[in-house]
Amino acid sequence: MTTRPARNPQRRDQLLDAGLAVLAEQGARGLTFRAVDARAGLATGTATNYFADRDTLLAELGERIHTRLEPDESELAAARGGDPTSTVMRRLLERVLARREVYVALLELRLEATRRPALRESLTATVRARFEADVALHEEAGAPGGRQAVALLHHAMEGLILDQLTLPGALGDPADAGAVAERLATAVLSREP
Amino acid sequence: MTTRPARNPQRRDQLLDAGLAVLAEQGARGLTFRAVDARAGLATGTATNYFADRDTLLAELGERIHTRLEPDESELAAARGGDPTSTVMRRLLERVLARREVYVALLELRLEATRRPALRESLTATVRARFEADVALHEEAGAPGGRQAVALLHHAMEGLILDQLTLPGALGDPADAGAVAERLATAVLSREP
Repeated sequence: MTTRPARNPQRRDQLLDAGLAVLAEQGARGLTFRAVDARAGLATGTATNYFADRDTLLAELGERIHTRLEPDESELAAARGGDPTSTVMRRLLERVLARREVYVALLELRLEATRRPALRESLTATVRARFEADVALHEEAGAPGGRQAVALLHHAMEGLILDQLTLPGALGDPADAGAVAERLATAVLSREP
Repeated sequence: MTTRPARNPQRRDQLLDAGLAVLAEQGARGLTFRAVDARAGLATGTATNYFADRDTLLAELGERIHTRLEPDESELAAARGGDPTSTVMRRLLERVLARREVYVALLELRLEATRRPALRESLTATVRARFEADVALHEEAGAPGGRQAVALLHHAMEGLILDQLTLPGALGDPADAGAVAERLATAVLSREP
């Protein structure tokens, strides 16, 4: 008996990365199992061996996208080591802007979540777990404000990233975006004890 | 000679509002001239009499969406009259959350702008003009920080709105969103002269 293809984790990631590319290029409406197979260069029917239904595919895409947006070890070590939060936020912006396609796919998934309760539920769980990890990291680094400050930083950075990805230059020079990230972080933390 | 249908402004707004609904319900990929006609309950071919091509339709949708997100006169008067910026931001959040479909359509348009340079250009012009009006209003109200503070407020509020529309409850209790808006505004303005 051979290992079933559905057990091959590299193949699964290959399909998810193809799904991510389809999301970014065509939006959620273009995301069919057939389109995922085609984008991955695999035979039609492969994706259906890995994902039981559309909600499963979307939930796993939410996980995969967040994994691909994570900081690398050196960035994490610097954050843990107590680098100023403003520097951490500037690096976060630079990291995401270097992975445009991944973040555009995430935004597509978030919009699809307004239409699909099952996706809203799975994506909420994914985002909440990552948020709890960020709160822990923030406290470990000795930064002020706790959970509330981390939530404010999240909101502010999400808006800045949205602006920089979709309409760079609408509100200011895109070359200043790193400085804007630092200013947002400093503002949020300046009023925390 | 009768007035051409393409000159009827009510009909044009009816088509744009139908386009907005299609964007919110199906995403940019679902936005065909035929789908707009159907959503408006008008004969197939009507939208093509009003919009020369897809880029024209998308550009006019960008204008229409921003018009429909505008504050009413009483809200504007309160902002001009010097209501605290934190209160102005709370009202902004409440207004947008009461018009979910319109903001979801805007997010769809912003994502489509990552794929269509002509749309990116027209939407940038629309957003920039509204931003200049906000800067003028902010200064008229005697609020601190000028253009830079208004840009920070925009970024922060866009992120908060994105979170509340797509994954309410992921980072905190949605019932607290108004207080979070006030906190973001106070933080941004507290470090301005």
